[in-house]
Amino acid sequence: MPSTNLTFTSRNAHRAWLATQAALPAGFRVGTTRFEFTPREAPKPAKMTLTLIALDQPTRDFGAVFTRNAFPGAPILVGRQRLREETLGAIVVNNKISNVCAPGGVETAEKICLATARRLGLSGNQVLPSSTGVIGWSLPADAMIAALPQAVDALAPGSILPAAEGIVTTDLYPKVRRASVGPGSIVGIAKGAGMIEPNLATMLVYILTDIAIPRAELRAMLVRAVEPSFNAISIDSDTSTSDTVAIVSSSKVHGVDLAAFEAALALVCRDLAEDVVRNGEGVRHVIRVAVKNATTNHLARSLGKVIVNAPLFKCAVAGNDPNVGRLVQAIGKHVGAFAPETDLSKLRLRLGGIEIFASGVFQLNPEKEAALVAHLKDAELYASAAPKDGVYAPAVDYPPHERCVEIEVDLGSGPHAATVFGGDLTHEYVSENADYRS
Amino acid sequence: MPSTNLTFTSRNAHRAWLATQAALPAGFRVGTTRFEFTPREAPKPAKMTLTLIALDQPTRDFGAVFTRNAFPGAPILVGRQRLREETLGAIVVNNKISNVCAPGGVETAEKICLATARRLGLSGNQVLPSSTGVIGWSLPADAMIAALPQAVDALAPGSILPAAEGIVTTDLYPKVRRASVGPGSIVGIAKGAGMIEPNLATMLVYILTDIAIPRAELRAMLVRAVEPSFNAISIDSDTSTSDTVAIVSSSKVHGVDLAAFEAALALVCRDLAEDVVRNGEGVRHVIRVAVKNATTNHLARSLGKVIVNAPLFKCAVAGNDPNVGRLVQAIGKHVGAFAPETDLSKLRLRLGGIEIFASGVFQLNPEKEAALVAHLKDAELYASAAPKDGVYAPAVDYPPHERCVEIEVDLGSGPHAATVFGGDLTHEYVSENADYRS
Repeated sequence: MPSTNLTFTSRNAHRAWLATQAALPAGFRVGTTRFEFTPREAPKPAKMTLTLIALDQPTRDFGAVFTRNAFPGAPILVGRQRLREETLGAIVVNNKISNVCAPGGVETAEKICLATARRLGLSGNQVLPSSTGVIGWSLPADAMIAALPQAVDALAPGSILPAAEGIVTTDLYPKVRRASVGPGSIVGIAKGAGMIEPNLATMLVYILTDIAIPRAELRAMLVRAVEPSFNAISIDSDTSTSDTVAIVSSSKVHGVDLAAFEAALALVCRDLAEDVVRNGEGVRHVIRVAVKNATTNHLARSLGKVIVNAPLFKCAVAGNDPNVGRLVQAIGKHVGAFAPETDLSKLRLRLGGIEIFASGVFQLNPEKEAALVAHLKDAELYASAAPKDGVYAPAVDYPPHERCVEIEVDLGSGPHAATVFGGDLTHEYVSENADYRS
Repeated sequence: MPSTNLTFTSRNAHRAWLATQAALPAGFRVGTTRFEFTPREAPKPAKMTLTLIALDQPTRDFGAVFTRNAFPGAPILVGRQRLREETLGAIVVNNKISNVCAPGGVETAEKICLATARRLGLSGNQVLPSSTGVIGWSLPADAMIAALPQAVDALAPGSILPAAEGIVTTDLYPKVRRASVGPGSIVGIAKGAGMIEPNLATMLVYILTDIAIPRAELRAMLVRAVEPSFNAISIDSDTSTSDTVAIVSSSKVHGVDLAAFEAALALVCRDLAEDVVRNGEGVRHVIRVAVKNATTNHLARSLGKVIVNAPLFKCAVAGNDPNVGRLVQAIGKHVGAFAPETDLSKLRLRLGGIEIFASGVFQLNPEKEAALVAHLKDAELYASAAPKDGVYAPAVDYPPHERCVEIEVDLGSGPHAATVFGGDLTHEYVSENADYRS
């Protein structure tokens, strides 16, 4: 179950709620600027937003986890070095170009960090860079450095919303989640599975807090919080070369209970992760798979991932079609290929709380079928409409509700469980990624 | 490269060529019948085709490989037993319902085998059953048994085409490939990735030969032929619960060289496998990935599979968009997650013969970009057209050509290689699997 059960009837209602989430913790300022430039590899004008997140004073208490893709972007390579630095003073984020395997990518990232640092009275290695966008193109370093003063001038405390809006690409809406812990707070923002033009989606997440948590504990908590949240979602099984989840504490608020902080951090991560899926490219249904009573944690997690990534099942969900044969197929293909020793005789499957499989056979009838269709329709975020030009676009730019397609996979054979989130496979996804040239 | 380089400008031209492929080897007859029935689980009329492949005399020389899905269909369970029998006399195939995890599925399959056997003067365990279609529904045994006499009456030598047409679901066209070896021949038919109504695709392949090859050799050759052909393709990563490749020799022709037979069998399997991909659901580009100089065969094969299953790259190909960043992403996600010890520093990538990545960086410029677009367009089977009702359908019901999107992944670090075939991800795929209720 989500920690919230929000519904929004309009973009304005959603924006008003975002404003209630967006108060910056003490000790941070954010600023953005947007400018036009011409990429070297594809010479036609494009726009980029530069986002700065600055601390009033550099902090020792920060951490990050990065992509496991074997071709990490240059900002990831630089970011891994930053984790070894004494302190962090700022984060500089650009969209539009991801700076992955581009000639001289690391040097360019360092150059932009240095220019940012000079404007903020820091050294270059106190600045964490992040980039998202087209893979393979080169960052326009000169244009970015020329734009920096505007971003610095825009730096302001108060709201994180400018940063939440600055880091997006084709996200339909900004994503902000907060939690208060005693007199302090945790605020996270996420850039989800969208692109300015079709290209690899990147997930960027920045979590800010004013609560003083020593670096070692902060980093350990982040790793634990990321596992059941960001590492438990999948839009399309593709792993970005730039994924980043960073956490920074300004350490202004002392004396907060560590366990209370960690619980709040886990909640912020889980809600943001679910937001990323809900705003995933072309997603019209969020699918939540709860795998229970598995012999290993790995089996529980991987089975959930396989289900939310099975193209035929995803298409069925898109069509509000309770084609449960495809669900059983997905479980069987994974177990058959990767865990053939698994005993599936006790498998029970529920969709929308309705038992559909037990004792090795389907448990179906026309009445259940009707109830399953109703469950799928209830979880639909918006209805798909065929456009005249064949290029499908989402009908909403806000999240109408937080209901999911609920799948329970009970293996009946062990103590392990995992919950995984994913989306359906829709015409809107194909339009986003095939109907426009990158 | 394909063993053929066929082009067809019309359905009639393709059918005329199929007729040249379809001569049945000596000792076989095929017959089909089509009838209406009402499924128990979803009470509205549906149609089924029953296909019989009968030997003039039962043979010891037959074999089959089956799905590795952990929920194999009832015909698979029965088929595994048949491999232990002395002889095989006939194959009975139905489409529309796959008989997977349906209550009493094995008993129903055996009942239909027995009824078939009685009509043909065989015993039930001399009949191999196959089913494809909706998962979870029950076979209409009474209606099938009532229809059997018509299929038996239709049995005729001469052409395998009635069987190639009888086993399909939403395949656009029947698939037949042959090879002559000395005075004998091998003829194979395949049912590919299509469905009468959206449901799990099943691959069914039947290879008939009149060349006498002892059972043990025949089965060993089949396993070897299946690896680089049917086990090297993927439409959507979903593994059917019913996949079957069966081979049957009538043993009429003796004295053929074993090595010549095996080479011909490999060719028939490879061409049929490529046909299955070319006629895959919604496929508008066939993608051939040749992975070279890998440290292990497993890495070569799995890397190829990951590339042809990466949704974002598949969408880019659908849009004739050489978004090579998505290709590198796919390689990086697999190596990062499953083979992090792999040295990628020597990786060279070619698309359509054009080098796009070497020495750790992209090798791109506007001229190459134009040539890459031209390669993708040349490999397109048909252009997608936006329909008024939003339900996309293929523009052809024959294979216009055999050109592929050619990808070469040279790892530069070992002796192993593998070639994998897949397709793009299109609106036609989503329409096939989401826009109709199953």
